[in-house]
Amino acid sequence: MSFKPEMDRSAKKTGSNIVLALDLPPDQPQRLLSKSIETLKMVHPFICAVKLNRQLVLPLGLSNGVQQIVRWIHDQGLPVLMDCKVNDVGYTNRTIAEYYYRAGFDAVTANPFVGWDEGLQPVFEVAKQMHRGVVLLVYMSHKGAEEGYGQVIHEPKTGRRIPQYVVFAQKALSWNADGAVVGATYPEKIREVHTILKNHVPIYSPGVGAQGGSIQSAINAGARYLIVGRSITLAENPAETAKLVRDTAKQFLGE
Amino acid sequence: MSFKPEMDRSAKKTGSNIVLALDLPPDQPQRLLSKSIETLKMVHPFICAVKLNRQLVLPLGLSNGVQQIVRWIHDQGLPVLMDCKVNDVGYTNRTIAEYYYRAGFDAVTANPFVGWDEGLQPVFEVAKQMHRGVVLLVYMSHKGAEEGYGQVIHEPKTGRRIPQYVVFAQKALSWNADGAVVGATYPEKIREVHTILKNHVPIYSPGVGAQGGSIQSAINAGARYLIVGRSITLAENPAETAKLVRDTAKQFLGE
Repeated sequence: MSFKPEMDRSAKKTGSNIVLALDLPPDQPQRLLSKSIETLKMVHPFICAVKLNRQLVLPLGLSNGVQQIVRWIHDQGLPVLMDCKVNDVGYTNRTIAEYYYRAGFDAVTANPFVGWDEGLQPVFEVAKQMHRGVVLLVYMSHKGAEEGYGQVIHEPKTGRRIPQYVVFAQKALSWNADGAVVGATYPEKIREVHTILKNHVPIYSPGVGAQGGSIQSAINAGARYLIVGRSITLAENPAETAKLVRDTAKQFLGE
Repeated sequence: MSFKPEMDRSAKKTGSNIVLALDLPPDQPQRLLSKSIETLKMVHPFICAVKLNRQLVLPLGLSNGVQQIVRWIHDQGLPVLMDCKVNDVGYTNRTIAEYYYRAGFDAVTANPFVGWDEGLQPVFEVAKQMHRGVVLLVYMSHKGAEEGYGQVIHEPKTGRRIPQYVVFAQKALSWNADGAVVGATYPEKIREVHTILKNHVPIYSPGVGAQGGSIQSAINAGARYLIVGRSITLAENPAETAKLVRDTAKQFLGE
């Protein structure tokens, strides 16, 4: 099964649209590994997928600790995304994606800014061959996102001015991406992107909680999945917080 | 010593402006490690620095194989760059940079598209604290680079149209980056960027050889360092090729 329907299946089965971002603060590798599994044990009943980041890959190594975590998550029947934000030349992008897919990841994130030819085309190719996913960054959740994702592009063919994130949303649609990331800190951007993507490309929204985004506004604007990290992982009671976030989201999703 | 003068010192000492990109094709970790050291042994007398990529970090792990390679390169008195193209939110960017710097890397590459606030500011901060470098991507060497790096931005304040790479070159100058990457496949862009950066921010140019860029045009346009990978690593005689590339570059640099 390819990644988009796989996520849909997982969200229906778990009754959750929460993707846990397992972004733990720097620590000793062995402690990071046990902290990861510990957090997952508490939180997994309330989430539909997990997103890992270089906060784990760099200290643990892909083939050592990270593959153990990926296997553990798969054993619970949940998909795992690698948030590597691919933005290199095609030859390197393809190699990066292949390493992550072979390590078991079901999808990678990528930056559409790098373009198609000799850029992301090789990543979409290998994803197709291996039945995995590519999720594109359309508008990130941090303040400085405005500088790049929020800038206005002059379209040479039409002479029109068009926001960068609209260009990216159009690429997500035409490249047939498995998802589009739009920060929950910018609900009006989620709405605009959702108008372009409709139900063809689901929106993944990070930035609720620690970064200030609201669950209600993100979902009402059209976010399909919420990516939640520190609000859960650093909470006094991660399980309770995860359940609360899930239930709040559920209420607005009308599921 | 911070990274910019460190590179200058290395280039003068070695009489070379060639940065070896050790981008080896996927292989078994142990073979990748021995192939890396083998290549470095042949090539190190003809280069001024080495750039590593995720082609090595993912299979070898940062703390296992990659740190051995970094130490080996440092033992020859050469600086090492990590081409991780940082483009995440600040909290993650800072962690990524810290892991690479602590593993011994003298500089990381970063994508200015991510912006300053909660984007690259934390990376420049940690670089300053640890006396390391940040090299910004200004125009990449692949075909699709045109889509992002080559697009035209509408400047809201002035109403002017300005190429994306010019915006990035201005950021490299005002953020006081240690280097700016401009593909050798676009010598006219190197020239334009050099007009902005002058001698404040040296230009690193990848893409000669395998990707079709010319040494002469890149250097005449203002490139200070050439990043050379597959043309050397996949050559029948890597040492001879590295020497030839160095001597050709030297001739046009007039050193």
